[in-house]
Amino acid sequence: MNTSIIRYILGQVMKVEAVLMLLPCIVALIYGEEEGFAYLIVLGICGLLGLIATIKKPVSTIFYLKEGCCATALSWIIMSIIGALPFVITGEIPSFTDALFETISGFTTTGASILSDVEALSHCSLFWRSFTHWIGGMGVLVFILAIIPLSGGSNINLMRAESPGPSVGKLVPKIRTTAKLLYVIYFTMTFVQVVLLLIGRMPVFDSICTALGTAGTGGFGIKSDSMAGYSPYIQWVVTIFMILFGVNFNAYYFILLKQFKKTFAIEEVRYYFLIILTSITIITIDIYHTMKNFSDALRHASFQVGSIITTTGFATIDFNQWSSSSKCILVLLMFIGACAGSTGGGIKVSRIVIVFKTIIKELNSYIHPKSVKKIKVDGKPVEHEVVRATNVYFMTFTILFSLSVFAISFEGKGAVTSFTSVAATINNIGPGLDLVGPTGNFGFFNNFSKYVLMFDMLAGRLELFPLLILFHPSIWFDLVASKTKKQGFNNN
Amino acid sequence: MNTSIIRYILGQVMKVEAVLMLLPCIVALIYGEEEGFAYLIVLGICGLLGLIATIKKPVSTIFYLKEGCCATALSWIIMSIIGALPFVITGEIPSFTDALFETISGFTTTGASILSDVEALSHCSLFWRSFTHWIGGMGVLVFILAIIPLSGGSNINLMRAESPGPSVGKLVPKIRTTAKLLYVIYFTMTFVQVVLLLIGRMPVFDSICTALGTAGTGGFGIKSDSMAGYSPYIQWVVTIFMILFGVNFNAYYFILLKQFKKTFAIEEVRYYFLIILTSITIITIDIYHTMKNFSDALRHASFQVGSIITTTGFATIDFNQWSSSSKCILVLLMFIGACAGSTGGGIKVSRIVIVFKTIIKELNSYIHPKSVKKIKVDGKPVEHEVVRATNVYFMTFTILFSLSVFAISFEGKGAVTSFTSVAATINNIGPGLDLVGPTGNFGFFNNFSKYVLMFDMLAGRLELFPLLILFHPSIWFDLVASKTKKQGFNNN
Repeated sequence: MNTSIIRYILGQVMKVEAVLMLLPCIVALIYGEEEGFAYLIVLGICGLLGLIATIKKPVSTIFYLKEGCCATALSWIIMSIIGALPFVITGEIPSFTDALFETISGFTTTGASILSDVEALSHCSLFWRSFTHWIGGMGVLVFILAIIPLSGGSNINLMRAESPGPSVGKLVPKIRTTAKLLYVIYFTMTFVQVVLLLIGRMPVFDSICTALGTAGTGGFGIKSDSMAGYSPYIQWVVTIFMILFGVNFNAYYFILLKQFKKTFAIEEVRYYFLIILTSITIITIDIYHTMKNFSDALRHASFQVGSIITTTGFATIDFNQWSSSSKCILVLLMFIGACAGSTGGGIKVSRIVIVFKTIIKELNSYIHPKSVKKIKVDGKPVEHEVVRATNVYFMTFTILFSLSVFAISFEGKGAVTSFTSVAATINNIGPGLDLVGPTGNFGFFNNFSKYVLMFDMLAGRLELFPLLILFHPSIWFDLVASKTKKQGFNNN
Repeated sequence: MNTSIIRYILGQVMKVEAVLMLLPCIVALIYGEEEGFAYLIVLGICGLLGLIATIKKPVSTIFYLKEGCCATALSWIIMSIIGALPFVITGEIPSFTDALFETISGFTTTGASILSDVEALSHCSLFWRSFTHWIGGMGVLVFILAIIPLSGGSNINLMRAESPGPSVGKLVPKIRTTAKLLYVIYFTMTFVQVVLLLIGRMPVFDSICTALGTAGTGGFGIKSDSMAGYSPYIQWVVTIFMILFGVNFNAYYFILLKQFKKTFAIEEVRYYFLIILTSITIITIDIYHTMKNFSDALRHASFQVGSIITTTGFATIDFNQWSSSSKCILVLLMFIGACAGSTGGGIKVSRIVIVFKTIIKELNSYIHPKSVKKIKVDGKPVEHEVVRATNVYFMTFTILFSLSVFAISFEGKGAVTSFTSVAATINNIGPGLDLVGPTGNFGFFNNFSKYVLMFDMLAGRLELFPLLILFHPSIWFDLVASKTKKQGFNNN
C-alpha cells in the first residue's frame, strides 16, 4: 500500500483545517472572546503537524481505491479529533468524548448535540460548530482536490470515497474542475441564503451560522429552541434552502449551463420532490387540527419534512408530540434521505429508486422468466455494477443499523430512543424521537453508546465502506508490512 | 396463462382440506361437542366445491413459475377462508375478519391470536387451530405433490413457490418422492414429541395440540398462559423440539441415510446452532438476577430463544418484562428466523449467511478490486442467481416491512407495538412486544390493520413474491384474456 500518499493527504487536510480555524479566531476577535486563544493554539499545532507531514513529497502519487478509502476515513477521524480540541481547551465541553461527539456530529453534518444549553457557548465556538457543517457538507477532500494538483487520474478514488451516492458524478472530465465547480455552486447558494436571511432581519451572526448549517444540511442551531423562535419568513427561507441543498448538484450544474431540460430530466430529483410534496400534504392534513390556521400547519409540516428528508435536523416545533402516523412518515424520510450528489445524508433517493426498480424487475421475471430487461434510470440502462453496489449498500446499511441498535439497547433507554438515535446518526440527521427528540439531546448516553453513534455518523457520511475498510485485517497487515519494508530497505 | 391447472389445483386443495376437517369432527365426537357440526357443514361444502372443480381434468398439465405462484397464493387464501368458517358458524369468533386472522395466523404458522381467552374455545376448535399449524408448516401443496401425480417436470414450480429458503432442496430427483420423504420425517418427529410429552404426564389432548403447534413452528397455545403452567420437563421437551423443527430438513434426510458427516457439513445448521447458543448465553446471564436459580434462568432463556428464532411463538414467561438488551436480541432473532427448508419462518439463516458473505466480499473488492471470488456456502460456490435472489428478497422484505409499519402506525398504538406486530406477523412468529407481547393479543387492532397483518403473514410464509405476484397487472390481464378466449372460442 502506498502509505506515503496517505501521509501526504492527511498533512494537506491538517493544513487546510488550520487555515479554516482562522475564521473562529476572527469571530472571537470581533466579539472580544478569550475562547479564541484555544482556536489559535490548536490552529498552530495543527498547521505545524500538517507542514511536517507534507515536507516530504510522496514516493508515488498513484493510488487506488484502497488508499483512497483509507485516506478519506483517516482524514475525517483526524479532522474531528483536532476540531474537538478547542471545545476541551476552552472548557465549554470538558469531556473529550463529548467534544469529539459534537465535532464528528458537525463534520458529518449530523447535528446531534450533547449540549443541553447551546446558548451558553461563546460566539466563536457556535460559529465553529456551524462551520464544521459547511466544511463537511461538500467534503474537505473535494476541497483539497479543488485546490491542490494531485497528478494522476487516480484521484477519482478520493472523490469516490467521499462523495455521496451510488455513482460519482464527474461533471466535467477533469476532477479538479468538477471539484471547483461544486464549491462555486455551494458557496454562491450559501451566500444567497445569508442575504435572504438578512432581508428577513435576522442578525448577521445568526444568518451566517444558520446558512452554514443549512448548506451542509447539518442542523446545529445556535438557539436552544432551534428555529422555533424565528419569524415565519425566516422559517420559509430555511425550508426552501434545506430542500435546495438536498438536490443533486448535477441539477445546478445543468442550470449553470442553461440546459434546463436536462435538469428536469433527472429522475432522482423528480422523485425527491414527489416524496417531499406527498409527505407535506399528509402531515399538513394530519396536524391541521392542532394548529391555529392552515398556513401554520403547512409551514411546520414543510419545515420538518424538508429538515428530515435532507437530513438537516433543524426544527420549528416538537414533532415528538405529533401523531404516530406523522412520526412514522418522518422516520421513513430519515432513511430515504436526500439526493445523491447533494450535501444531505440518508440512503439517498437514487438508491431507493434503484431498489424499487429492482423489486419490480424481479416481479416481472416471475411473469416472463426469459426476458432480460435492464433497469433504467433517466432513460438510460443502469450498469449492472451500480445495481449490485446499491443492493450491497442497502444490505450492509441494514445490518450495521441493526447491530448498532442492539449495541445501544444495552443502555436500556427504551426502544424508540435506541432505534431513532441510531437512525438519526447513521443517516446524519440529528434529532430522533423520544429522549433524542427535538427538545432532547444525546448527552445522557454513556461513553460506549456515544462511540457507537460516532461510528454510525462517520459510516453514514462516508457511505459505509470507506470506514469499514479500516477494520479489514489486510489493511493492518499492509501498514505493518510497509513499516517493516521502510526500516529494512531504508525508504526504498 | 394455464388457468385450468390453477382451477384443478385449487380443487385438490379443497378436497384435501375437507378430508383434514374430519379430524376436528372426530375430536368433537370424542368430547361430545355440538360445535363439531360446524366443521361437518364446512367439510361438506368444501368437499363438494373441490369435487366440482376437479371433475374436468385440466386442458394441459404444464405450468410455469407464474402459474405455480398464482396457484400457491390462491390456495393459501382459499384454504384460510374455508378454515375460518367453522369459527364463525360456531360463534366462537363471531367476526369473519377475526376468524380469518386466526386461521391465516394458523396456516402460516404465525400463532398471533385475536382471542383474549383461548380456554373458552371448544376442544374441536382448539384442535383445529393447532392442526392448521401442522398443515401449514410443511405446506399443503407439498402434501398434494406427495399424494397426487401431477405429470410433467414443471411441478417443481409449485414446490418452489411454497417452500421456504433461497434455493429449493430437492432431496431426491423425483419431486413426489421428496415430498413424501419430507412428510414422513415431519410425521415421525411429531409423533416422537407426542410420546415424550405423554411421558411427562401431559394430558393426551394437550400433548397432541402442543406437538402440532411445535412441529409447524406455529405457537397457538391451548392455555391462556401458553406454556408457563407446564412442568420444566415438558418445557424442555418443547424447547428441544422447537429447535429441531427449525433445522433444515435436509439434515434429517442425511441422518436417515446415515450420512452424518454431510449433516454436520451444512453451514446453515452450524450457524443456526451458534446463534442459538450465543443468544441463550447472553440472555441467561442477563436475566439470572431476576430468577430463583441458574437452571430456571437457563430454561426460560432457552425456551424463549428457541421459540423466537424458530418463529414458533410459545412462551413460558412474559419476556416483555426483560431488559431492553434481551428484548433486542429477541427482536434480532425474529428477523433471522430458522433454517431454510424447515417449518420455521423469518428471513432464514441461510439468507443471512449469504448477506454477510456478500458484504465481506464487497469489502474485499475494495482491497483487491480485480479479484473475482465467488461466495461459497458448504464449500461450494453459490450460484450468482441465488445471491441475486437473496439480495432482492432482503430488500423487498425491508421495503414491505417499512410500509407495513407505516400502515399500522395510523392506529397510533405506539412505535414498539406497531414495529413488533409487523415483525411478529411477517416473520410468522406470533407474539411481539408491548401491547402484542406474550400476555397480549391482536384483537384490539382495527380491521384495516388486521388485513395488513394478514397480508404480512401470508407474504412471510410464501416468501413474498408468490403473493406479490397476484398484484401484478399482467396476471389480471391474463385472467381476463383467458376468460374472453373461452367465451369466444367455446372452451378451445
